[in-house]
Amino acid sequence: MLAELKGLNEECGVFGIWGHPDAAQITYYGLHSLQHRGQEGAGIVTTDGEKLTGMKGLGLTSEVFGNGKLNDLSGKAAIGHVRYATAGGGGYENVQPLLFKSSHSGSLALAHNGNLVNATQVKHQLESQGSIFQTTSDTEVLAHLIRRSGHIDMKEAVKNALTMVKGAYAFLIMTETELMVALDPNGLRPLSIGVMGDAYVVASETCAFDVVGAKYERDVQPGELLIINDEGIRSERFSMNINRAMCSMEYIYFSRPDSDIDGINVHTARKNLGKRLAVESEIEADVVTGVPDSSISAAIGFAELTGIPYELGLIKNRYVGRTFIQPSQALREQGVKMKLSAVRGVVEGKRVVMVDDSIVRGTTSRRIVTLLREAGAKEVHVRISSPPIANPCFYGIDTSTHEELIASNHSVEEIREMIGADSLAFLSVEGLIEGIGRPYEGETKGQCLACFTGRYPTEIYQDTVLPHEKA
Amino acid sequence: MLAELKGLNEECGVFGIWGHPDAAQITYYGLHSLQHRGQEGAGIVTTDGEKLTGMKGLGLTSEVFGNGKLNDLSGKAAIGHVRYATAGGGGYENVQPLLFKSSHSGSLALAHNGNLVNATQVKHQLESQGSIFQTTSDTEVLAHLIRRSGHIDMKEAVKNALTMVKGAYAFLIMTETELMVALDPNGLRPLSIGVMGDAYVVASETCAFDVVGAKYERDVQPGELLIINDEGIRSERFSMNINRAMCSMEYIYFSRPDSDIDGINVHTARKNLGKRLAVESEIEADVVTGVPDSSISAAIGFAELTGIPYELGLIKNRYVGRTFIQPSQALREQGVKMKLSAVRGVVEGKRVVMVDDSIVRGTTSRRIVTLLREAGAKEVHVRISSPPIANPCFYGIDTSTHEELIASNHSVEEIREMIGADSLAFLSVEGLIEGIGRPYEGETKGQCLACFTGRYPTEIYQDTVLPHEKA
Amino acid sequence: MLAELKGLNEECGVFGIWGHPDAAQITYYGLHSLQHRGQEGAGIVTTDGEKLTGMKGLGLTSEVFGNGKLNDLSGKAAIGHVRYATAGGGGYENVQPLLFKSSHSGSLALAHNGNLVNATQVKHQLESQGSIFQTTSDTEVLAHLIRRSGHIDMKEAVKNALTMVKGAYAFLIMTETELMVALDPNGLRPLSIGVMGDAYVVASETCAFDVVGAKYERDVQPGELLIINDEGIRSERFSMNINRAMCSMEYIYFSRPDSDIDGINVHTARKNLGKRLAVESEIEADVVTGVPDSSISAAIGFAELTGIPYELGLIKNRYVGRTFIQPSQALREQGVKMKLSAVRGVVEGKRVVMVDDSIVRGTTSRRIVTLLREAGAKEVHVRISSPPIANPCFYGIDTSTHEELIASNHSVEEIREMIGADSLAFLSVEGLIEGIGRPYEGETKGQCLACFTGRYPTEIYQDTVLPHEKA
Amino acid sequence: MLAELKGLNEECGVFGIWGHPDAAQITYYGLHSLQHRGQEGAGIVTTDGEKLTGMKGLGLTSEVFGNGKLNDLSGKAAIGHVRYATAGGGGYENVQPLLFKSSHSGSLALAHNGNLVNATQVKHQLESQGSIFQTTSDTEVLAHLIRRSGHIDMKEAVKNALTMVKGAYAFLIMTETELMVALDPNGLRPLSIGVMGDAYVVASETCAFDVVGAKYERDVQPGELLIINDEGIRSERFSMNINRAMCSMEYIYFSRPDSDIDGINVHTARKNLGKRLAVESEIEADVVTGVPDSSISAAIGFAELTGIPYELGLIKNRYVGRTFIQPSQALREQGVKMKLSAVRGVVEGKRVVMVDDSIVRGTTSRRIVTLLREAGAKEVHVRISSPPIANPCFYGIDTSTHEELIASNHSVEEIREMIGADSLAFLSVEGLIEGIGRPYEGETKGQCLACFTGRYPTEIYQDTVLPHEKA
Repeated sequence: MLAELKGLNEECGVFGIWGHPDAAQITYYGLHSLQHRGQEGAGIVTTDGEKLTGMKGLGLTSEVFGNGKLNDLSGKAAIGHVRYATAGGGGYENVQPLLFKSSHSGSLALAHNGNLVNATQVKHQLESQGSIFQTTSDTEVLAHLIRRSGHIDMKEAVKNALTMVKGAYAFLIMTETELMVALDPNGLRPLSIGVMGDAYVVASETCAFDVVGAKYERDVQPGELLIINDEGIRSERFSMNINRAMCSMEYIYFSRPDSDIDGINVHTARKNLGKRLAVESEIEADVVTGVPDSSISAAIGFAELTGIPYELGLIKNRYVGRTFIQPSQALREQGVKMKLSAVRGVVEGKRVVMVDDSIVRGTTSRRIVTLLREAGAKEVHVRISSPPIANPCFYGIDTSTHEELIASNHSVEEIREMIGADSLAFLSVEGLIEGIGRPYEGETKGQCLACFTGRYPTEIYQDTVLPHEKA
Repeated sequence: MLAELKGLNEECGVFGIWGHPDAAQITYYGLHSLQHRGQEGAGIVTTDGEKLTGMKGLGLTSEVFGNGKLNDLSGKAAIGHVRYATAGGGGYENVQPLLFKSSHSGSLALAHNGNLVNATQVKHQLESQGSIFQTTSDTEVLAHLIRRSGHIDMKEAVKNALTMVKGAYAFLIMTETELMVALDPNGLRPLSIGVMGDAYVVASETCAFDVVGAKYERDVQPGELLIINDEGIRSERFSMNINRAMCSMEYIYFSRPDSDIDGINVHTARKNLGKRLAVESEIEADVVTGVPDSSISAAIGFAELTGIPYELGLIKNRYVGRTFIQPSQALREQGVKMKLSAVRGVVEGKRVVMVDDSIVRGTTSRRIVTLLREAGAKEVHVRISSPPIANPCFYGIDTSTHEELIASNHSVEEIREMIGADSLAFLSVEGLIEGIGRPYEGETKGQCLACFTGRYPTEIYQDTVLPHEKA
Repeated sequence: MLAELKGLNEECGVFGIWGHPDAAQITYYGLHSLQHRGQEGAGIVTTDGEKLTGMKGLGLTSEVFGNGKLNDLSGKAAIGHVRYATAGGGGYENVQPLLFKSSHSGSLALAHNGNLVNATQVKHQLESQGSIFQTTSDTEVLAHLIRRSGHIDMKEAVKNALTMVKGAYAFLIMTETELMVALDPNGLRPLSIGVMGDAYVVASETCAFDVVGAKYERDVQPGELLIINDEGIRSERFSMNINRAMCSMEYIYFSRPDSDIDGINVHTARKNLGKRLAVESEIEADVVTGVPDSSISAAIGFAELTGIPYELGLIKNRYVGRTFIQPSQALREQGVKMKLSAVRGVVEGKRVVMVDDSIVRGTTSRRIVTLLREAGAKEVHVRISSPPIANPCFYGIDTSTHEELIASNHSVEEIREMIGADSLAFLSVEGLIEGIGRPYEGETKGQCLACFTGRYPTEIYQDTVLPHEKA
Repeated sequence: MLAELKGLNEECGVFGIWGHPDAAQITYYGLHSLQHRGQEGAGIVTTDGEKLTGMKGLGLTSEVFGNGKLNDLSGKAAIGHVRYATAGGGGYENVQPLLFKSSHSGSLALAHNGNLVNATQVKHQLESQGSIFQTTSDTEVLAHLIRRSGHIDMKEAVKNALTMVKGAYAFLIMTETELMVALDPNGLRPLSIGVMGDAYVVASETCAFDVVGAKYERDVQPGELLIINDEGIRSERFSMNINRAMCSMEYIYFSRPDSDIDGINVHTARKNLGKRLAVESEIEADVVTGVPDSSISAAIGFAELTGIPYELGLIKNRYVGRTFIQPSQALREQGVKMKLSAVRGVVEGKRVVMVDDSIVRGTTSRRIVTLLREAGAKEVHVRISSPPIANPCFYGIDTSTHEELIASNHSVEEIREMIGADSLAFLSVEGLIEGIGRPYEGETKGQCLACFTGRYPTEIYQDTVLPHEKA
């Protein structure tokens, strides 16, 4: 489904490299392959061994770094970040990596994917001790904790600081002479390491490795701190309280189909979810279609298992960008629609299975069902390749509050009626777990299913706020 | 396949409307749905019954008309145009519609899809009589012919001028009080008319009708001149020498899958081409994949007929725009690739059928085969859902010269070796004709197959030049 | 006085050079020194002997040619143009030089300072013969006349065309191999030639020569056509009906103080006008102040002759540009004023002589008198270093219509009351003629005084329109 | 003289207002009138009583706040800042006002004109205690001192912080509910207060009051802290160790001619300096000319006293902006010069007195003398309306190091020879003191003359660095 229609957004993607003469360029290409994880802003910080140099801006990576600007970033190592589009707030200051210069103790750059659930509490305490915050980002909290830790050794300062933050985080932390990589004790966000000749690379998704020509090594482990410098790579543990709980929405919706997470290819996982969905809720129909782009794989799986032909029943306009002009209400009522089109020649007179990956508020599903009916579909059967999302996420996904989540307040039959479908079925939680088929033990197979089940892998602080409420 | 990689580009798309208070807005949305036909520039001219107002610019429609600029275009009727990206040349002046103001005989706006094969000859003659040309576009020739025709009646002046130009054209011609629509006697380019309440709309592709909420009426006929004004619509003939020869590349590659041409849906035609291709050149393999976006339909058809699973083996990066930063040669050799990725999790260790719609120069095919092999494909079998392109196009498609067309100089086996595939097969000309299945009589079923067969439906002038050589 | 406040604007400045390897760069610097003559747009066309290359845009020269764009203009010769800011209209198309390419007879570039009084008549006739005009500029008329002249020899074609246009013009006409320079038979606009090593330069004002390091040779003569090419320079006459009538506003207001016109330095002329003004209308006062920038010289002259100290009583804000934000009406009434400030420390309690160069509508004068009074001036005596402007200009100065010219409808005493001055005096026509002191015979000493006297040196066509009404 | 040529720049201008519904707009106009004090960047922060809202950017005020952006700043009070153009460094982060938001103790905005001489020492100490600095600006030091002071009462926290910083400062400090205004104990920078109806205004120069229609009340006193809120204005002292030492360069060069400092009008002061200079170093000559813009007043005074006519011998091009294209070295040698022109018609064959306000490195003076000679001046006598600058400034003026100051290393006769003048004279220190004529007791009459005499009014810390070395 279309992120911009759904209000289901992740906070970021991160990429880092140590030991390559074209560090900034490679980071740029890496970020470019992670662009689907955030389009609001992008930044890169490099080190040449003696000083950190940063560049960041609002917009796509190609806008921020185009026109030769990338050439101003030299050095043998770099970290980069892409940030997702919040409704308002944020702005330039919050674009990462955050870069902190100091006349006293060296500089520090931070890039963060995830969300800290105790950021408000820690920030309040630090401010009462005289700290000044420049951003509204939870990421800055870690920088202050590092600076105030009292440890002279940077690694110890970082470890100390990490023990004080809770929630979801994949952190890249760079000084003039080191790149540190940390994943939270639940491993809620994906993060992998690879090699590229003599250089080490780290990225939110493995698709970045393929794009830059790096070789995937392994996923970073929960509670692991990697220290990379000119002498090589070292792995340490900063937490012993480990409990893998990888976000299942990464498989369902966020990650690129060509990425692997814990060894499972995302496209393959989605196709399997589509097959499980077909098994759980088969239906007689003439065509199967997926909502582009993220539901295509599940739709192919559904079609393959049922033998119903897979068709391009919905077309996404490739030229819908941020400067796009929305039709007025009057024109919308007249039928002007810009982002998605139903293919009349495919659906007219047909019983259509429309496969989508998830339903958040339900408004988009209703619109797509209407599109298909206007194009002549005789029946529209909606099949969702994940369970109902009934609980908000506190780990970096900008879903919504309980009030906005349609499945938090309505039965499946009510939702079916609201979106105007002839039938509606969601995948079961068991189907989800089995469909992805992660190589982990336990009931959840090391996945976070909190948005479906309400069982959160970490403590949730009383006043935890969603990212989009903070700015 | 990716237009930008292939050097196979069409000149334009046109859209017009008469009789709607939001004429400019609707034209904008219409052009937006035709954006795939041209990304270099866009323009709209409106009439309020008394004067023409124009706006145009380089870039995408959303860039040209964003930020409220569209509001400056009022009136009850409009014509618009999207122009494709030439290597250099052209620039602002050549962006259409061309608008000619006159203190003497009213204003004139022209939008043109196609290419005139005798433009050079006519232009030379007009200049020798003192005419001054402002653009390097062949379209301007028609304006001069209209102005110099001596006919006081605009309709007669237009008819007279049309008899003097040869080649491919879908023309929208607007004055303060009329919209004229003309299609060349061979009907080489698609052009359809529809209604939207009391308003008439005309567009290069029917997908534009769905997007703006209009109802498709019929395709414009070869040699037909439509005159639309406040009193209604009138059809006349300006040529009796009619011989339908619709460009077959519109089905194969250019048009949007949700458009219909002469009643045939484009996605369905492509899927059928994929099926015919499977019949003609079946192969044992593990997965079928298509080169996004234009070859997806053919790949689905190929998979459906053979029973080999269809997979997302290749992923296109959605964020590759015009400001995109190309990797340096050194980085390219290191494996940095930005536009297209092979999905390792899908192709590793597999025998892959890679379906593409056409091969022009062969360089892109070679690159994609390499991508798949680097991602671990055991075998790569290339299947092309059209015959070899062995002849240049003179009707508005910027293919290449004979020298550049790989199929003009090499056998299929030679091409296979050059692109590094394990096997290669093209669709036959008969398979193409039958696969599309146009409802016309005759050997070609009213299609232009010149680029495959070398049999051009019009005279070709000695010094006809390709569009990309003119600027 | 401030051009933007007064609505007294000239159409342009022109610069040309033949025979220098850095032709475009030098033209840029020349245009930069003529920027006061027009800020709406700028353009340069170069020739390398084989083809013309053009670049133009809206805005200041530094905006149009900045960021390395100038490097795209190579060649040994160039012509350039700066265009003044019209209220609306015009736009990109009308920015000069106009460049006409032809497949038949070579290309042609035109840059024009002045205004043709029979442009409407000639244009109408050309359109009735089938010509198409691309701009609303009167300049394009000459291009069509040249192309239609039937002469194969370009020089004869230009001469022939020049005999058909009437009014004020300094034309630079460039082909691949020649630069032609023409001045109207009345020599209404200034135009000078100089040398720069082996190169020839031509400019609207001599200040451009000083800036580029060229040596002034002489002023172009009325009715003269200069042909400059690789073999040298040749002077011919295209009209025998010569009657020098140089625009006196060039001395009074438009030209830069460091320019010379017909051998008279502009600053010196203005200072002399100030002295004559002092003789004609002396007054008892404490300080003399001029309205920056154009009235400073006259104020210095007034002070020098009377012995009253010259002071900076009015300060112009140097940072008022086009993007400047105007105060709202409410804030204006509260006293917010941005462009001009009165210096309280200088005028408080004083009897102030405020010297200005002209009054057009009177609104600005009233504002400045108010400014001075609010800053504490005891008396404000306004002295104008030119006679009352009672008639519109048809030769390229965008004054106003009769209705808007305050002196066209009111006596000096009425104007004094309207602007709130304690006394008001204008310079006499005789004082103007003597003050400038041109080295010409006759009553007007070869000056155009039409805006003061209503005696126009050329025929005025019935429907002549002012430049700002045309767009 | 031209700031950009001379390398003599001040750090900033500040403006504040409390109690006006259009606070942001008025601050914008105030900053616009202070634009000469800094063109690198500008910012405004407003309060509506409950929260602070900020906007800032690189460029001129009109660029930063244009296009309706100002409307986003609502509230009854505002502070603003303009920042001067440093060679490189600084950038967006350093643009002021600095805005510090806190979830704990309210927000804080700071605008600063001046330079703290112990910033490095204090910053080092704060960082060693865990503070993180976001800017390289000395201004941020004060924010950290306030936050760490331990005082709950903001006024006490500010007073406490002010006692810890040394050097030159005019501070505007705004919270949600108060505007605090502080001037250093030496009063090195100008700062005045005024009223505008019920609102209070504060500005670096009084010209801002005239522009916004405010009434000047008095200058802020050294060591004074003003607290302005909805209940009115209160004055307190934060230091008892007061010793007025107003920067004399404010009179000589920086401030606008229409500003008053300690009751002395700047234009009048400059004119008097010109007269004293004439008395001290009279010379036989034909014309007097000033280097625009800042030396015009002194030149007028020189001319008035000597009776030698004042002329516009040098013209500054008004269109030299930041995007201006510099001539290449080759073209410069050919004589292309863009910023300043000598008026041949005025200086040719004349003995010229060229009055300038100061000499820093001498390079500009040499260029101007050359300009005058190339324009035909027979003799060039340089007269400087201030004493030789032999010592660097540590209080916010970006002069230069000792090494760069020509007068630090050379005698007057040596300088004369280096700049190529026929004669050269500087004003004496006594002439400077008497010429300005400040209403203060004591040898220096409450002026800082350190750059002339080397006697600094404050302690100078060992590692004090010049502002332009910090970034």
